[in-house]
Amino acid sequence: MSQFRQDPIVGRWVIVATERAAKPQEIVQQTRRESLQACPFCEGQEEETTAELLAVRPASTAADGPGWQVRVIPNKYPAVTSDGETARCGWGFQREVQGVGAHEVIVECPQHETNLARLPAAHVADVLRAYRDRFKHHKRDQRIAYALLFKNYGALAGASMEHCHSQILATPIVPELIGEELAGSWEFHQRNNRCVYCALVEEELDGGARVVVQTANYAVLCPFASRFPFEMWLVPLRHQEHFDDERDDDFAELAEVLTTVLGRLAAVLNDPAYNFYLHTSPLHAGATPHYHWHLEIFPRLAQLAGFEHGGGMFINPIPPEDAAALLRP
Amino acid sequence: MSQFRQDPIVGRWVIVATERAAKPQEIVQQTRRESLQACPFCEGQEEETTAELLAVRPASTAADGPGWQVRVIPNKYPAVTSDGETARCGWGFQREVQGVGAHEVIVECPQHETNLARLPAAHVADVLRAYRDRFKHHKRDQRIAYALLFKNYGALAGASMEHCHSQILATPIVPELIGEELAGSWEFHQRNNRCVYCALVEEELDGGARVVVQTANYAVLCPFASRFPFEMWLVPLRHQEHFDDERDDDFAELAEVLTTVLGRLAAVLNDPAYNFYLHTSPLHAGATPHYHWHLEIFPRLAQLAGFEHGGGMFINPIPPEDAAALLRP
Repeated sequence: MSQFRQDPIVGRWVIVATERAAKPQEIVQQTRRESLQACPFCEGQEEETTAELLAVRPASTAADGPGWQVRVIPNKYPAVTSDGETARCGWGFQREVQGVGAHEVIVECPQHETNLARLPAAHVADVLRAYRDRFKHHKRDQRIAYALLFKNYGALAGASMEHCHSQILATPIVPELIGEELAGSWEFHQRNNRCVYCALVEEELDGGARVVVQTANYAVLCPFASRFPFEMWLVPLRHQEHFDDERDDDFAELAEVLTTVLGRLAAVLNDPAYNFYLHTSPLHAGATPHYHWHLEIFPRLAQLAGFEHGGGMFINPIPPEDAAALLRP
Repeated sequence: MSQFRQDPIVGRWVIVATERAAKPQEIVQQTRRESLQACPFCEGQEEETTAELLAVRPASTAADGPGWQVRVIPNKYPAVTSDGETARCGWGFQREVQGVGAHEVIVECPQHETNLARLPAAHVADVLRAYRDRFKHHKRDQRIAYALLFKNYGALAGASMEHCHSQILATPIVPELIGEELAGSWEFHQRNNRCVYCALVEEELDGGARVVVQTANYAVLCPFASRFPFEMWLVPLRHQEHFDDERDDDFAELAEVLTTVLGRLAAVLNDPAYNFYLHTSPLHAGATPHYHWHLEIFPRLAQLAGFEHGGGMFINPIPPEDAAALLRP
């Protein structure tokens, strides 16, 4: 079983996931090996994967057989697993808890398409609904504090499989960056009695220089302090705290916005590798008037180097105003 | 001139460095272009570089000509420059300060060697002394709060030049990760009246399972909550706050330790790309009884993906105890 270990100086948690690789060489070779085999995520290859947890498929088709549109399965190389209790954390320099949680893959289409940007928006709405339904599922598990949804597209973005997919990693600990956002937005709310994301979006729509897309309910903007060239944040205009509170009829518009900006990213930067991830309130946080879900998207154009790793400070050669001008449809 | 911009939610600073790339395509192509040309860092090519700031060379040789052993020059594509005053930070959602600072390259040998691990320890002692001398230089500039020394070795680690070199990026803001270490170690010191690094090293040497090398004055260990497989921390055994307080006769032993563990990294993992960076007290911090300089080293074996970027939490498939056993000479 994997372990969550805490750094004694800064409090940063790490998952030591021994089930992912038996030998050092395998870390390096895993990516290569997988890409040589037939794609297990394609329709018809269901017996090559773990058993499905959820699928968008007609009632006439059987689980773990063909006929599906979206399929959620446990990750074959999980960083965390769901057996066991969440132990309390110990004292001293070696604080650790058991690696209880879930690690799932959302296979986003049956055919061998690689980029979500090229799927029809109506299909992507089903994908987003599957994300939401998995959040609802994890919310029922009191051992799990947070479910982080993320996508790795392309080898440079850390993807080991080509076939269009995202992942959910559900953990007993709220990841550090979400903790920082919760703390910062809490402080803003205490001072201003307002959600910082609501205030920020209002100011950005007012100015407009960093806005990529605006629809009735969503905006996509290149944030003022973008860490990465062409970084984008997709934010609901209304104050929305939990992604799993999104209703079925929100997803058509959201899918349209997401495929539009991912399509622009592919068009402007020649189909780059990219990541996106969803930041939402912790599953059991209840009402969070200070916090607002959003999706952060960024292409992987350059390697992060020693300065970024060593300082946690980023160097961005493209001002977000220029990026937004190029990305705007 | 570049700008430091602050994220309004978490307070993270970003350098928007427009002088580094004029067009989006250049970001992608820069690496490739440079590697096709003759190496400007080799002895005899001095006219291809900016003018030297410091060199280890016999008095009989002229600046910016051959005959040197180590050479420090301004980065040709600086993220920050030294002209101008550090403006105070504004209010509201668009907090920014001018990008005052320095961005330097330490060219670590005259011949076209790529890995510091393959240089003689006596030569590496000169390199370390050059690092220290540049810290002493920047300490005289009150506009500069921090100088971060880092090395990118190999394209996967973000290096755009093969020739063995490190960089110093001096900024008017203390980078976030150093700020977190200062805050965490301050809190530990307030509670325990002790430097957390001193206490940690004592405990690690006691146990021994994560120790890679120990000499009279230094230890290298794989930290308990290692973010990356084979991550190592090089820590002085005595409480040493500022790297620029190191004396000339410390460097022979330090160079021996550093080349030993970099050599082990190359041997065990087949010469992987790696980064290292130096964490030391801020230049003008004065006495920091809670903080202790150290060098963090890690090979770049896998791409950071959406989970790490989105959560700030890392997945490490190799327990540091196993890594230390393999790395131990």
